[in-house]
Amino acid sequence: MPRNKGIVLASRPQGEANASNFRLIENEIGEPGEGQVLVKHHYLSLDPYMRGRMDESKSYAASQNLNEVMIGGTVGEVVASKNPNFKVGDHVVGSGGWQLYQLSDGRGLQKIDTRRVPIQAYVGPVGMPGVTAWYGVNKVITPKKGETVVVSAATGAVGSVVGQLAKAKGARAVGIAGGRDKCKYATDELGYDVCVDHRAPDFAETLKAALPNGVDGLFENVGGQPFSLTMRRLNAFARIAICGLIASYAGKEKSSLEDLRVLLVNRARIEGFIVSDHLDIWPEALKELVELAATGKLKWKETIAQGLEAAPEAFFGMLKGKNFGKQLVKLI
Amino acid sequence: MPRNKGIVLASRPQGEANASNFRLIENEIGEPGEGQVLVKHHYLSLDPYMRGRMDESKSYAASQNLNEVMIGGTVGEVVASKNPNFKVGDHVVGSGGWQLYQLSDGRGLQKIDTRRVPIQAYVGPVGMPGVTAWYGVNKVITPKKGETVVVSAATGAVGSVVGQLAKAKGARAVGIAGGRDKCKYATDELGYDVCVDHRAPDFAETLKAALPNGVDGLFENVGGQPFSLTMRRLNAFARIAICGLIASYAGKEKSSLEDLRVLLVNRARIEGFIVSDHLDIWPEALKELVELAATGKLKWKETIAQGLEAAPEAFFGMLKGKNFGKQLVKLI
Repeated sequence: MPRNKGIVLASRPQGEANASNFRLIENEIGEPGEGQVLVKHHYLSLDPYMRGRMDESKSYAASQNLNEVMIGGTVGEVVASKNPNFKVGDHVVGSGGWQLYQLSDGRGLQKIDTRRVPIQAYVGPVGMPGVTAWYGVNKVITPKKGETVVVSAATGAVGSVVGQLAKAKGARAVGIAGGRDKCKYATDELGYDVCVDHRAPDFAETLKAALPNGVDGLFENVGGQPFSLTMRRLNAFARIAICGLIASYAGKEKSSLEDLRVLLVNRARIEGFIVSDHLDIWPEALKELVELAATGKLKWKETIAQGLEAAPEAFFGMLKGKNFGKQLVKLI
Repeated sequence: MPRNKGIVLASRPQGEANASNFRLIENEIGEPGEGQVLVKHHYLSLDPYMRGRMDESKSYAASQNLNEVMIGGTVGEVVASKNPNFKVGDHVVGSGGWQLYQLSDGRGLQKIDTRRVPIQAYVGPVGMPGVTAWYGVNKVITPKKGETVVVSAATGAVGSVVGQLAKAKGARAVGIAGGRDKCKYATDELGYDVCVDHRAPDFAETLKAALPNGVDGLFENVGGQPFSLTMRRLNAFARIAICGLIASYAGKEKSSLEDLRVLLVNRARIEGFIVSDHLDIWPEALKELVELAATGKLKWKETIAQGLEAAPEAFFGMLKGKNFGKQLVKLI
């Protein structure tokens, strides 16, 4: 039997999360019992929502329990099975958590086809982040040809898909990202019409100049000052999808809507959403995303940390925008 | 020919509107030309949206021009007609403005049946305010049986209809109003389950106690502190209709959403709307409202100022909540 390693939540963060909030554990992983399957993880996905789960305060999902393996999306392969639905060698995506192996009864595991897209994409553009982007674009923002859609964290796992889907609908896609390299990638590779660097000293002016026709749709992943500035350029009947507010997760900076009149004057709509509330749209979304990814019409970038022990630092970095594209941890 | 009197916008308010912003004028009103109709106004409607029109800044509609008769909904009777669609004695509703007479080509005038509901109700519960309530309830909040719907300015022209429509859908209706008398009327006559006096010193605690099951829908007419406190009680998938923000119209108090995480955590939706954007729903809404009003199932209250000259003071009072129910000016 393989020896398993995992990372548990050791304590809840006060403000920013740090290494003391995590603890590495080792344990024996049993053989699969009747109906069970043993999965060896290839990649762990690191996602901003995890920061919310670390807090005790009300989030959109139950808190992560202390001293239990951190929640997380995983892709891997079946290495032992006593479940008729899975056989050794099957590739699967699931929520295996921050650990090397997972013993599962098969619920929550989905078999995936890794011949057309690489395995780790199933926790990226053809997984939860991709479906999140798809939902926000197709069910909240519904961009029309010629409209302007702004995307924060424009090159991230979610944002990079948002921009490409918005472009495919004929919208003008304006990205906001941190740093010149990300902005160059956004326009050169992802197809954004323009990308504005929120770390540049002239950010406010550049953003304004990038929005000569105002804002019809906003896919918000970050919050904070870029959000406030974008909201000043709203057009009538604008739609704002609130997917994440990573700038506020450490509790230092609140993301506010300073004057609600902007919603009244523009008859605008703001909607917070969590993709796991909308399981009905996953098959349609994934079908479309896999097709786009397999045919080269959907691009993405990955930042890969090596080894489970590197997960906490990679996670802290992601919360500060140090990742470039989808943040993964390679476990094999 | 009758001599007409009107009130024009003399200057734009700096902060609160006051008497110096208006000026009374008198003029000859001509005889109707070919295709025209002369309407003698019985009632002028005073509504919060007018305050927004007085500003030059971007509002949801064009600014009121200086030195022109103030915009306003009116009901009256045709006293001379050279338009085949109208005959002397017809009762009509229209946007005749703050004046005694209106010369019209008939566009924007609707004939109304005053046998089942009184004429002034056509600028109240069976007019624009009623349709506003209907839209917010049926198209934004869509209350379900057992849900809790909060209504600010609960006894006002719009709010009083919101509460009754929400109750009719099986929701628990919680009103917020200014003063004990309004709150008593809200529960005793309009059917609110509870009404909280936002002027009472224990408002915050009383509001919290009135919302043991949280908030599923909010119809917001006011903004300010009552809005902020209500937003703290949101349930998952709450819907917030922003109809008005009268607390902010003088520019003193901004209505803010302090922490956007409330939308994300609760997957909530906030939507600003203006009923004039949705002309398609007016016939359905009015049919339902007239039926309810004519059969005694829809109640309302009026505050009536006498004479055109009383309009400015009545308007200032309404912006401060001094009216009780629909604010009208009787012009005959």
